[in-house]
Amino acid sequence: MGGESEKWALMVTGRTPTNIAVIKYWGKRDETLILPINDSISVTLDPDHLCTTTTVSVSPSFDQDRMWLNGKEISLSVGEFQSCLREIRSRATDFEDKKKGIKITKDDWQKLHLHIASYNNFPTAAGLASSAAGLACLVFSLAKLMNVKEDYGQLSAIARQGSGSACRSLYGGFVKWIMGKEGDGSDSIAVQLADENHWDELVIIIAVVSARQKETSSTSGMRDTVETSLLIQHRAPKRIIQMEDAIKNRDFPSFARLACADSNQFHAVCLDTYPPIFYMNDTSHRIISCVEKWNRAEGTPQVAYTFDAGPNAVLVARNRKTAALLLQRLLFHFPPQSDTNLDSYVIGDKTILQDVGVQDMKDVEALTPPPEIKDYIPTQKSKGDVSYFICTRPGRGPVVLSDESQALLDPVTGLPK
Amino acid sequence: MGGESEKWALMVTGRTPTNIAVIKYWGKRDETLILPINDSISVTLDPDHLCTTTTVSVSPSFDQDRMWLNGKEISLSVGEFQSCLREIRSRATDFEDKKKGIKITKDDWQKLHLHIASYNNFPTAAGLASSAAGLACLVFSLAKLMNVKEDYGQLSAIARQGSGSACRSLYGGFVKWIMGKEGDGSDSIAVQLADENHWDELVIIIAVVSARQKETSSTSGMRDTVETSLLIQHRAPKRIIQMEDAIKNRDFPSFARLACADSNQFHAVCLDTYPPIFYMNDTSHRIISCVEKWNRAEGTPQVAYTFDAGPNAVLVARNRKTAALLLQRLLFHFPPQSDTNLDSYVIGDKTILQDVGVQDMKDVEALTPPPEIKDYIPTQKSKGDVSYFICTRPGRGPVVLSDESQALLDPVTGLPK
Repeated sequence: MGGESEKWALMVTGRTPTNIAVIKYWGKRDETLILPINDSISVTLDPDHLCTTTTVSVSPSFDQDRMWLNGKEISLSVGEFQSCLREIRSRATDFEDKKKGIKITKDDWQKLHLHIASYNNFPTAAGLASSAAGLACLVFSLAKLMNVKEDYGQLSAIARQGSGSACRSLYGGFVKWIMGKEGDGSDSIAVQLADENHWDELVIIIAVVSARQKETSSTSGMRDTVETSLLIQHRAPKRIIQMEDAIKNRDFPSFARLACADSNQFHAVCLDTYPPIFYMNDTSHRIISCVEKWNRAEGTPQVAYTFDAGPNAVLVARNRKTAALLLQRLLFHFPPQSDTNLDSYVIGDKTILQDVGVQDMKDVEALTPPPEIKDYIPTQKSKGDVSYFICTRPGRGPVVLSDESQALLDPVTGLPK
Repeated sequence: MGGESEKWALMVTGRTPTNIAVIKYWGKRDETLILPINDSISVTLDPDHLCTTTTVSVSPSFDQDRMWLNGKEISLSVGEFQSCLREIRSRATDFEDKKKGIKITKDDWQKLHLHIASYNNFPTAAGLASSAAGLACLVFSLAKLMNVKEDYGQLSAIARQGSGSACRSLYGGFVKWIMGKEGDGSDSIAVQLADENHWDELVIIIAVVSARQKETSSTSGMRDTVETSLLIQHRAPKRIIQMEDAIKNRDFPSFARLACADSNQFHAVCLDTYPPIFYMNDTSHRIISCVEKWNRAEGTPQVAYTFDAGPNAVLVARNRKTAALLLQRLLFHFPPQSDTNLDSYVIGDKTILQDVGVQDMKDVEALTPPPEIKDYIPTQKSKGDVSYFICTRPGRGPVVLSDESQALLDPVTGLPK
């Protein structure tokens, strides 16, 4: 171990995107290794709007592993962190920084303690895949720090053991998690189907829906489904190949039909679970109705929807023009509460709001019913059903932030800034 | 044709119950004959609380077929009425009332016109199977009037052509609709599994849930499901035999598990339909959660739930004591709006309300959270989510009302009273 005074600290800051499945992962064949019962496909979301930033630091002056999430210290003793730490540590290799006079051998990494600080630029546990981005970022940043030589596929298999869908956050663009066959999970890895530039027309709008009820955690939910649903075994496996083709060919109608049908089928097997699981609520249903009516009126899909284990809608518009028309419809049906600032109601890429021509609440109130609504009843509007909208797009994979000012830990104290 | 002055009118008044499926009918293999893709099982509800009364009258002075529903004239030209009228007329036999001097031959029935008046003692089209009771009552009353010799099974096959589930309203107690195999539908009939006295401990509470959205009609809904759902073909067929056994043995835990699972699976295939169909809403979900929590806390099912093509919950309690505990919970979670009279909020068999010890709104407000609720948050109460509750029980099949004062048509004018 190097450094004359043992006062050195080595630090890496990584940034990792979140992802949204368009062919859902639901059900494990191995609970410990987190091995799924089917392949899944996701779109990586632009980290400018939804990402986790994690700084990992190692120093001989640290006397235990510690972690802070969004500034608050949390326990590292839970299984998912422990699996990832153990797996990464076992793959650490010799590191040397001659300039700083630091040398860490493979064996040193087993003894040195870590400080980890993680920050989500979006609400944690709001059903926006914060654990996927978080675990992926932890694995990515630790791998960089510890000079791990494994490729991203192998890293994805480690992230997978932290949180299943985390494995899909190791790449940008479109990602497939191959379920694999091996008992040890070595072939249950994520691969990139296409990068974020392949289909850059797409625009994604997330409706963060206000939930009145506590939700079933996805971990216990999928366990119950596997144990009790008679329909789960009949989920359509062909959709994976069809979705791969749709992505490859930038075939939006097929992409939309497959994504919507798979989301609905996922929620159907949740309902077929005993006791039944409801993730979507009335607001989710109304968002679907709004999109379905519009798609039908246009004769071909303009927007795809997909819902994870919660009521939030993730809406994929075929292009910017469609996204503006979608946002118009969403603001018409789900206006903000009177005391809400429009600026905090539509976040992320606000340029889409400009395309809509909506600048303030007066403009929202002046919106007229979309042409596909024949029998509009004003009482159907309900303020407050949506908390806010996030405008984003498919985005890039993990990156190392080399600018030390973006680190979340103080290089001297090793504590959160 | 008899009657010296042709001024005579012959009249029959029938009363037919509604029914609720505990193994659902969803999907037709023949749209015209209304032949289902699976067997179904229902409980007949007590006609004292939910029934249709129909008076059918024939007279040579009537110059056309006419019908009134709840006092309002409606068109008889729709297909479902026409099928039933045609089928019954073709089975009419000679009739003679020597006292009144009326004689009608088989051939006369083809020429004579009918007046029909029908009345539901519950809201029509509120998702309470009004069409099932209505069509069954039409067929039953006409068969009595026209001296049709066919047995109830054969009559059920006629009622089936009016509205599929109507065939199950021709018997009391527990009824099975056998899907049949024949192309002409002759073996797609209803049979009684057990009469209403077989399991008379059961108490049924219906929560009529306020709906904000227009619902998909069951006719178009089941067509869409058959055409687009990949899961519909995998609905569990074994449940029919298991449910027959549960009913035969009065095995409430099995009955409840099967009824709940089948209801959930039916709504799952609706969700797997494209575009997806949502019949249950947030209030329906909350009622399920309330029942599931209680059942789990008790270790064995106290109450079964089942939902048809709408948000209303039909809850079957194992006995009167359980029904009182259920009503207590329902009133606690879903109190009436302040301006609602308790007397109009709990209708049907009001003696259950007495068992609960609730006499007025003050008593409702004084209800405490049930013991299985550990984390009760007062804001979860929402007044107005349920329109009203109907307390009822399994009931008898169709009857002829011989008391002429109960007829809906004036014997002299042939018009609604």
